[in-house]
Amino acid sequence: MLLSNSFIPILKNNPSEAKIKSHQLMLRVGMIKQASAGIYSWLPLGFKVMKKIEDIVRQEQNKIGAQEILMPTIQSSEIWKESGRYDDYGEEMLRITDRQNREMLYGPTNEEQVTEIFRSSIKSYKSLPQLMYHIQWKFRDEIRPRFGIMRGREFYMKDAYSFDVSDEEASLESMRKKYEQFYAVTDEKFNKEEFEKIVSKENQLITKGIEVGHIFYFGDKYSKPMGASVDLPGGKKDFVKMGSYGIGVSRLVGAIIEAKYDDKNEIMKWPLSVAPYDIALIPMINKNDTSALDKANNINIELIKNNIDAIIDDTDENFSSKIKKMNLIGAPYQIIEIITKQKNSI
Amino acid sequence: MLLSNSFIPILKNNPSEAKIKSHQLMLRVGMIKQASAGIYSWLPLGFKVMKKIEDIVRQEQNKIGAQEILMPTIQSSEIWKESGRYDDYGEEMLRITDRQNREMLYGPTNEEQVTEIFRSSIKSYKSLPQLMYHIQWKFRDEIRPRFGIMRGREFYMKDAYSFDVSDEEASLESMRKKYEQFYAVTDEKFNKEEFEKIVSKENQLITKGIEVGHIFYFGDKYSKPMGASVDLPGGKKDFVKMGSYGIGVSRLVGAIIEAKYDDKNEIMKWPLSVAPYDIALIPMINKNDTSALDKANNINIELIKNNIDAIIDDTDENFSSKIKKMNLIGAPYQIIEIITKQKNSI
Repeated sequence: MLLSNSFIPILKNNPSEAKIKSHQLMLRVGMIKQASAGIYSWLPLGFKVMKKIEDIVRQEQNKIGAQEILMPTIQSSEIWKESGRYDDYGEEMLRITDRQNREMLYGPTNEEQVTEIFRSSIKSYKSLPQLMYHIQWKFRDEIRPRFGIMRGREFYMKDAYSFDVSDEEASLESMRKKYEQFYAVTDEKFNKEEFEKIVSKENQLITKGIEVGHIFYFGDKYSKPMGASVDLPGGKKDFVKMGSYGIGVSRLVGAIIEAKYDDKNEIMKWPLSVAPYDIALIPMINKNDTSALDKANNINIELIKNNIDAIIDDTDENFSSKIKKMNLIGAPYQIIEIITKQKNSI
Repeated sequence: MLLSNSFIPILKNNPSEAKIKSHQLMLRVGMIKQASAGIYSWLPLGFKVMKKIEDIVRQEQNKIGAQEILMPTIQSSEIWKESGRYDDYGEEMLRITDRQNREMLYGPTNEEQVTEIFRSSIKSYKSLPQLMYHIQWKFRDEIRPRFGIMRGREFYMKDAYSFDVSDEEASLESMRKKYEQFYAVTDEKFNKEEFEKIVSKENQLITKGIEVGHIFYFGDKYSKPMGASVDLPGGKKDFVKMGSYGIGVSRLVGAIIEAKYDDKNEIMKWPLSVAPYDIALIPMINKNDTSALDKANNINIELIKNNIDAIIDDTDENFSSKIKKMNLIGAPYQIIEIITKQKNSI
């Protein structure tokens, strides 16, 4: 990709409204653009990174046999009234009235919707366990959206849901192991006593963290009020036991920047697996001599053959501003080409 | 994938609420499940097909140099007031008031949002042409949603937007050529006189069609009221000229079914490129003899190595119900394995 053809609107200076590293960089290199409070458009550079994260999350979910579905963003209030959460959820839920005066909402999460899918089709323990996930936009009407996409209102999230016959089933454990790889783990089943035994006051380290994932074990919290039960071997019925497993896909873009951006020297170090470009080709060009650009184009032909995604800075800016720009974009590798022209002897 | 592990809730009979082929099949084989009027969840089988269509659309857009972005689903009413469409759009627009009493809406389309992105960054003819697209959920609050996902309220669409210096630019043409491949082309620039010269009354054939794509040429319809102008070479300024290019990704799933489903014989013929599974392995199994299933599993190991996605019907149903089910699912190829056990001589 030639930089001159790319829509990468880089700002000269850090935007003053951004208080944290990830928000600064994302606005600075044109990864995102604010649409309204807590709501962002993803521009090409930001989109590429988020898409790569999404694809990694999808591959990992598929590896453990989770089945991908896609629930809608707009939900009916009816299922939330069944679970009892419609009134409890508070003002973070974006409530909507459609043209037929039906009470709808923009899903902040999907426990009710997925329980409704489950109960309408699955009736027997023989069909368990089930593990389903989707990657979909959610909306939480935060009173003070801030930190860019780290705490936005519209955000992109993977949420998986497990359905098991009993509390002792394996879904939660196998998913937890996956999670112990991404950044953070929380758990409603968390045993406070056990934790305090291990971590004494003297051993504690107080530090900041970013929640990019979570695990909740619900048991029959949703299946019971919504009547999602299965027939058991002995002829009895029981409510299915559920858990959920979230990963903030859009938030991970920010979390990686927080971990990898050197804001003092304005250098971004993307891991290769999620970098917007694998490599930057930086030829030095002047009006009379485009040989370095020709060379870069030739190198790129070979890179494309090898499935390596390069960006070529084909502008005629000076050396230091080119390097500065590419350090911000953060391709893990750079090839810099300076061709010094020999004067012909007369 | 083993059928017994898959969440494919197949119905015994065609659902009576579905009036058209695609809606019938999609409910029948559990590709979708209605969440509320005109709003659907995509279950694993339906999701796989839609995802493959999405990926083909993405590849084709990238091939012609369009850059992928992602605009949010929830938009501010302000930009729609600028373009003058906020009052015009009518009740199909899902209007939302957030907790701060701001007027928001669920985007039915994205001309205003993309014009806002353009005008805030691009100031010179040197940065033109630009061609950007996104694949995102839209919402149109249809008064009578019907025909399943063919005329739903929440739908998945690719919309591309071109920005050119003049009406004579090339973006529209190159995009139109792409479109002449997908199913339908309409065009605001459509010349009625020319059309009538060619198509006389006698030559007309009245038939049904499905709109799965459209091309609109706007000129400065949005750029003028929203002030999206660029500096021209001579020192003048002009409003950028815009076009849009839509493809209904979710609707294409239905359109392909309408074209390919033999509802009389209940056989679905997915094109290989979008089939939920490339091949179905149908071993005949009984309690005493699982050798056909073992063989199917061995074949599948080879298929996986060759990146071929197979579904194995590992249930112990009878031959005709297995075939019926797989004909509905519609894998383009089937391998049927019947192992007849030889009686040992005594």
